Amino acid sequence: MIGIFDSGVGGLTVVREIFKILPQYQIVYFGDTAHLPYGTKSKEAVCRYSLANVQFLLNQGAKIIVIACHTASSLAVDTLRKKFPKIPIFDVVKPGIKQALEVTKNKKIGIIGTLSTIRSEAHKKALLSLNQGVEVFSQACPLLVPLVEEGWINRSETRRIVKYYLRHLKQKQIDTLILACTHYPLLENLISSIAGRRVTLVDPAREVAKELKEFLEKNKDIAQTLKKGKDHKFFVSDVPYKFGELSRRCLGRVVKVEQVRIE
Amino acid sequence: MIGIFDSGVGGLTVVREIFKILPQYQIVYFGDTAHLPYGTKSKEAVCRYSLANVQFLLNQGAKIIVIACHTASSLAVDTLRKKFPKIPIFDVVKPGIKQALEVTKNKKIGIIGTLSTIRSEAHKKALLSLNQGVEVFSQACPLLVPLVEEGWINRSETRRIVKYYLRHLKQKQIDTLILACTHYPLLENLISSIAGRRVTLVDPAREVAKELKEFLEKNKDIAQTLKKGKDHKFFVSDVPYKFGELSRRCLGRVVKVEQVRIE
Repeated sequence: MIGIFDSGVGGLTVVREIFKILPQYQIVYFGDTAHLPYGTKSKEAVCRYSLANVQFLLNQGAKIIVIACHTASSLAVDTLRKKFPKIPIFDVVKPGIKQALEVTKNKKIGIIGTLSTIRSEAHKKALLSLNQGVEVFSQACPLLVPLVEEGWINRSETRRIVKYYLRHLKQKQIDTLILACTHYPLLENLISSIAGRRVTLVDPAREVAKELKEFLEKNKDIAQTLKKGKDHKFFVSDVPYKFGELSRRCLGRVVKVEQVRIE
Repeated sequence: MIGIFDSGVGGLTVVREIFKILPQYQIVYFGDTAHLPYGTKSKEAVCRYSLANVQFLLNQGAKIIVIACHTASSLAVDTLRKKFPKIPIFDVVKPGIKQALEVTKNKKIGIIGTLSTIRSEAHKKALLSLNQGVEVFSQACPLLVPLVEEGWINRSETRRIVKYYLRHLKQKQIDTLILACTHYPLLENLISSIAGRRVTLVDPAREVAKELKEFLEKNKDIAQTLKKGKDHKFFVSDVPYKFGELSRRCLGRVVKVEQVRIE
């Protein structure tokens, strides 16, 4: 199976993209709702939680891991690859920045994410390591996750808050904006309308799904170890807060979810 | 020492009130920032975390416990009293509802809090158990904690969101409103201006401090076991996110805080 984990339910936006282009494979999802949000926690805590999440997914039969959470991708990916060297582990940072470098024309790239993701500077460092000629502008947007979880997708308050967060990035005349948080694709239309037509949004969920597809095409031996079918499994570590709503929004239906304790 | 715990740093509003009327006693504070927020977690998880928090405070020398967190007060107080029968444990639910029953004239009481607090109906049940003649109207306000933590105390967006949350309660013509979350006292002026002059706000932080003072005056033997002085201790279980800012706002200065792992 393809194992996917997130700090909560936002990772369903990644599941949606994987279902779109790799519909044949079975997935197992783990949302660490007992510890959400990761966006305000320390690197040490995020690494500890992420290790437990991956171990759980491997126990469930995962042969490949996708880190859907940008905070975990920013803070824990090295720790995870070191601990599980034989498991292909995909993060959402790298595919997003690769795509951003492909689409930017004026070399001014914006990044929005949680406080921890932005503070980690993971995207900025990765962008500059691939191309020192780009300028990178970051903005933490701590209110967007709560707004999405409230379902305030199209409310005027959300519009005003997004405007506030994007002001600085617009002044810098970015032409590319990375949505570096699983929840933000749900605000894609709103963000796009405020960012303006000249700004291309990059959704790392879409990019990691593409990267996974290419990897499986190149590595047929690994692809063959993956289960096929529709018997997907969804787990959370505490109450599946907003899971029903988000699964309806992302997957078009309310999926069954099981609560497990992994501490 | 007086031990005080909260899911994070919001409990500093309770510390502020205790410092005001019981300045002689030393306190030890624990903010469970590794698991915050409690407001979206299950009863089982909140009980488990709360037990660990109290054990930590007792190990630090606490002789009395104050649960500053409304979600933990709503979900875990019975569990804690059962587990620690000899320790006086104060919660923030009871003092708030007592005060509300004293000040209401038209017997229409509003409650605002996190989703878990409101869902637990702890305040409503407690109010009705003391006075079946009151009408109780509740409103979960999940965006207010993130807004306070962002420091958006006086912004127009916050005003609009508070207006939205209070609309239903105003229609019901409440004359008393319980601020059933540690963060809300920081929005007291804004909430009051929107609720209108006819609505009295009840801040349970203030009420629990008064109750504690009365208790210590009546129980001199217990009061004598408490350390006096200014050598207060502040601990958190993960990064002290926003602790500096909130301690400046609540206590007038940035206090030293130590990070400990208690799992």
